[in-house]
Formats: sequence, structure tokens, C-alpha cells
Amino acid sequence: MTTTEDRLDTVALQRLSLNTATTKYWTLQQAIDGAVRAGIPALGVWRDRVAEVGTDRAARMIQDAGLRVSSLCRGGFLTAADPAEQHKALADNRAAIAEAAALGTDSLIMVVGGLPDGDRDIVGARHRVADRIADLVPHAIEHGVRLVLEPLHPMYCADRAVLSTLGQALDLAAPHPAGAVGVVVDTFHVWWDPTLAEQIARAGRENRLAAYQVCDWNLPIAADALLSRGMMGDGHIDFDTIGGWVRDAGYTGDIEVEIFNADIWAADGDLVLATMAGRFVDLVLPAAEPTR
Amino acid sequence: MTTTEDRLDTVALQRLSLNTATTKYWTLQQAIDGAVRAGIPALGVWRDRVAEVGTDRAARMIQDAGLRVSSLCRGGFLTAADPAEQHKALADNRAAIAEAAALGTDSLIMVVGGLPDGDRDIVGARHRVADRIADLVPHAIEHGVRLVLEPLHPMYCADRAVLSTLGQALDLAAPHPAGAVGVVVDTFHVWWDPTLAEQIARAGRENRLAAYQVCDWNLPIAADALLSRGMMGDGHIDFDTIGGWVRDAGYTGDIEVEIFNADIWAADGDLVLATMAGRFVDLVLPAAEPTR
Repeated sequence: MTTTEDRLDTVALQRLSLNTATTKYWTLQQAIDGAVRAGIPALGVWRDRVAEVGTDRAARMIQDAGLRVSSLCRGGFLTAADPAEQHKALADNRAAIAEAAALGTDSLIMVVGGLPDGDRDIVGARHRVADRIADLVPHAIEHGVRLVLEPLHPMYCADRAVLSTLGQALDLAAPHPAGAVGVVVDTFHVWWDPTLAEQIARAGRENRLAAYQVCDWNLPIAADALLSRGMMGDGHIDFDTIGGWVRDAGYTGDIEVEIFNADIWAADGDLVLATMAGRFVDLVLPAAEPTR
Repeated sequence: MTTTEDRLDTVALQRLSLNTATTKYWTLQQAIDGAVRAGIPALGVWRDRVAEVGTDRAARMIQDAGLRVSSLCRGGFLTAADPAEQHKALADNRAAIAEAAALGTDSLIMVVGGLPDGDRDIVGARHRVADRIADLVPHAIEHGVRLVLEPLHPMYCADRAVLSTLGQALDLAAPHPAGAVGVVVDTFHVWWDPTLAEQIARAGRENRLAAYQVCDWNLPIAADALLSRGMMGDGHIDFDTIGGWVRDAGYTGDIEVEIFNADIWAADGDLVLATMAGRFVDLVLPAAEPTR
């Protein structure tokens, strides 16, 4: 029996998507079941969770549960200087594009990669990223999938992504059709950027704002810096202001919660989803609502 | 007796400055003596080292040793919303300006401060920094001291500095005379910035490039993120490229080595200075030389 409260919750959660990295130790089936129990209608899916059952079966499982896929995480790692490595990276990204299409999402999140081992030429690495994106665009268009460039926090510049700001992502996207290359605003990565308001507005004008991902910036930075992402409300990010900029840029799509955090991973998954849904409704959704 | 090799070294080191944070456990006198032994002609001095003997005596000690002061570290912490806190911060910065003048340096490095406790309004914090800089400029001009704005790495945005990029620093400086407000390029903080080449050139054009500080970006990020700074050559920064941009912007001043790093602090100070001088000559100086 569905109560009024349940129905209200479902309406409030209609734009919420659970990124499977938030519940790292759940299998795809567990993530699907957890999302359904929590009234969350969408999943952002990592490729390891897809690989665990195969793409076609993953697509069926998600569809059968009545969920949609907000994005596939992730393609990228395009900075190699070695031709054999470049070839491998392109093959892997083409496979990811096909996977995204098979899963019914048009968004493939792209983490472009850091400096190759022992290489300090960041300018050169950025040029190679631009070249590899150009290589991939025809394949993306063919599959109806958008390469969604993700600027990562500058603390990951050496080892994860030489793409560090939204403005840089939009410049990188500029030579390509807006339907083929978009950008994602992930609050953790870009909240500090003094040009954020202006670049989010630009992303809207240029029709490239493809995804909005949220989590908080907690301090201290975790011993493993990758695990510093926090639950919304636990850190220093002003979701109201950033959410308003995203809304004003015309974004009305899914809002993914993607949290890498050892404490959250160790907690009970259903409790994590309940907290996440509550924080989403209290802190993230109000500013992001177009009707506000 | 001075050998030819010693004299060559002294020439090679003429732009090198030891920031006292690099030898954290040395007193001011020890830092002076160490710099003299190593043939390093300048010190970047932290205020705690000055306070330990008093400003006038510190100035005399440094001058008597034949050294110059490349900068005083540091003023700033200007983000308070509370009027009493603002008043305290201004008083402290006025004292720092007077100290810089007494020490014979025209450069007061400014770390602007992070978000006040529990405050998430980064846009408001940045406006307050701009207002406080404006409050301090007349005092700086009166003392012949330049407020040298330091963009800090975005990973310190919440707790240390809401000033994160060189472009933002130049925008913040723009309303004021170039002689009163400058900027510092610290490789650790800005190496990742995709607009770095363009903003260093702009700093040169606008006559605001007041200081060049070097150290490396090491991974993993240290458990205490403040201590992640590495010896040049140990990390991922391309000093040749950045040094060339700084040279092309017309900078010919001192180059300070400022390293916060627990391992380096625990090492023998004379060995640290020898390594530092060697890495400076090999990795930093060649690109920074105007005659190159």
C-alpha cells in the first residue's frame, strides 16, 4: 500500500540518480534493488558493475526494475603519448560508447587522464586529449552518445585528469557538435572555481550542460585523496548557489549523487540511500527546481 | 679560500632565495648562517622567525650577514564577516606592512583566507577580501610595500584561500596601482591551471608579477595536505615551461624556494640547502634566465 508520504517522496526524488560508486560494495543487482526500495528512479552506472553481468543483461535488469540510466562512468584516459597505448585507449572508449548506447543512456562521462609516467609536459598531454576526443566524436555521433567531459579537481591533475576547469572543458568541446560533446558539473571538482557562475551559464548557452553530479567537499582531505568526497551537507559546498546557477543555465536533467568515501562505503547501503535522499531533498533540489 | 667553483656557484645562485619555511626548525640566525654557508644571497622570511628576535634586530641580523629579504610571509586572512574580526585582521596586516618595510623588502605575501567557520558563501567571502585589500592599499603605499596576492591551490579553498587562480588574483589587484598590489606565481599552487601561460603574460603586461616561488607537486598528497610541497625535480611540475613563461613576462627578481614537507624538515638543513641549490641550478634557473 502506498501512502501519501511515499508518493510525495517519489515526486521529490524524480531527478535523483544513484551513482553506483556511492554504494561501492553493492553489485549491480543490489544497487538496482536498493534504488527501487528508496524510490530513486535512476542509476549512474560504472562500467565494472556492467561488466559483472554483461551489457545486455545489465540493460535488461535496469529496465525491468523500471529504472533509467543517467550516465555511464566512464570513458577517457586519453593522454598517452605512445601510439600503441593511444590505440588501446581509443578501442576501450569505443567499447564504452557502445555500452552507453546499449544501456539507453546518451551520457558517457569522460575522465581524460593525467600525465603519463615520468612525463611533465602538461601542455602536450592536453593537446593529445583534444586529438583523441576528435578521434572519438564520429563514433559517438554514430551511436547517439555524448562524450561528457568532466573537469576534475586540480588536485587530481597529475594522476587523473589534465582537464581541471569547466571553462577548459567547454573550450575542448567547442570544435564539436553540442550533441556529441558535453560537460558535467560535479560540485566536488568545481565548487572552488572563481569563474564557475560564468562558465555554467556558458555551458547552458552552448547547449553542453549534460549532467549535474553532487557531493560535498569535506576536510581534512582523505589519506587517499580520491576518497575525500562527502555527503551533501557534511562539508563546505554551497549547493543552493551552485544549484541555482545550474537551474538558470536551463538544466532540468538527472542529478547524480556520486560519493567516494570509505566511511560511507562501510555503512549500511539502505541507510546511505535514505540519508542521500533526505539531503537531496533538503539541500540540492530546492535551488535546482525550475519552478522555484 | 674561494675556489673558481665556489665563485661560479655564487653567480648561479644570485637569484635564489631561501624561504624560512623550507628549514622550518631553524631559527632566524640558523637560517641566516645556513644561507651564507650555502652561498644563497636572499631570504624569504616568515613572521614567526621575525617575531622571535623582534623586527629591528631581525633586519640588522639579515643585513649584517650581507643577505637581502626577498619577501615577508605573510599577511592576509581577510575573509571574516564579523566586524571585530575584520578589525583585528586589518590591524595585523598593517603591522605586517610595517614589518616588511623595516626588513627592507617591498613584498608582503598575502594568503587571503578561507571560508569562515560554518560559512559556505564563497562569493561573499571573495567580496570581503576585495574590500579588505582596498582598506589596506593606502597603508601599503605609505610604507612602500606591495601586497602580493597569492593564489593558493584549489584544495586549500575552504580553509586557507578563496583566491585560487592567477587570473582571479589579477582581477582582484586590478582596481589598485600596480606598485601597491602585485601577484606571486608559486608553481605548486598554479602549475595545473590551463590559463597559466596567458595569465603569467598578463601579470607581466600589467606590471604585477612581484614574486616567483618554486617547489614541486608530489604525489601522493601528504596526510597533512599543507605538507605536500616537494623539492624541485621530485614531482610532476615542468619548471622549464613555467620558468620560460615567467621569464617572457619580464620577471628578473628573486626566486624563492618554499617547501613545506615533513621529510625535508627532518633532514639536515645544510644538506637540504645543497640539494635545493643544485636543483635550482639544474631545473629552475635555465628557463628563468633572461639571457637564455
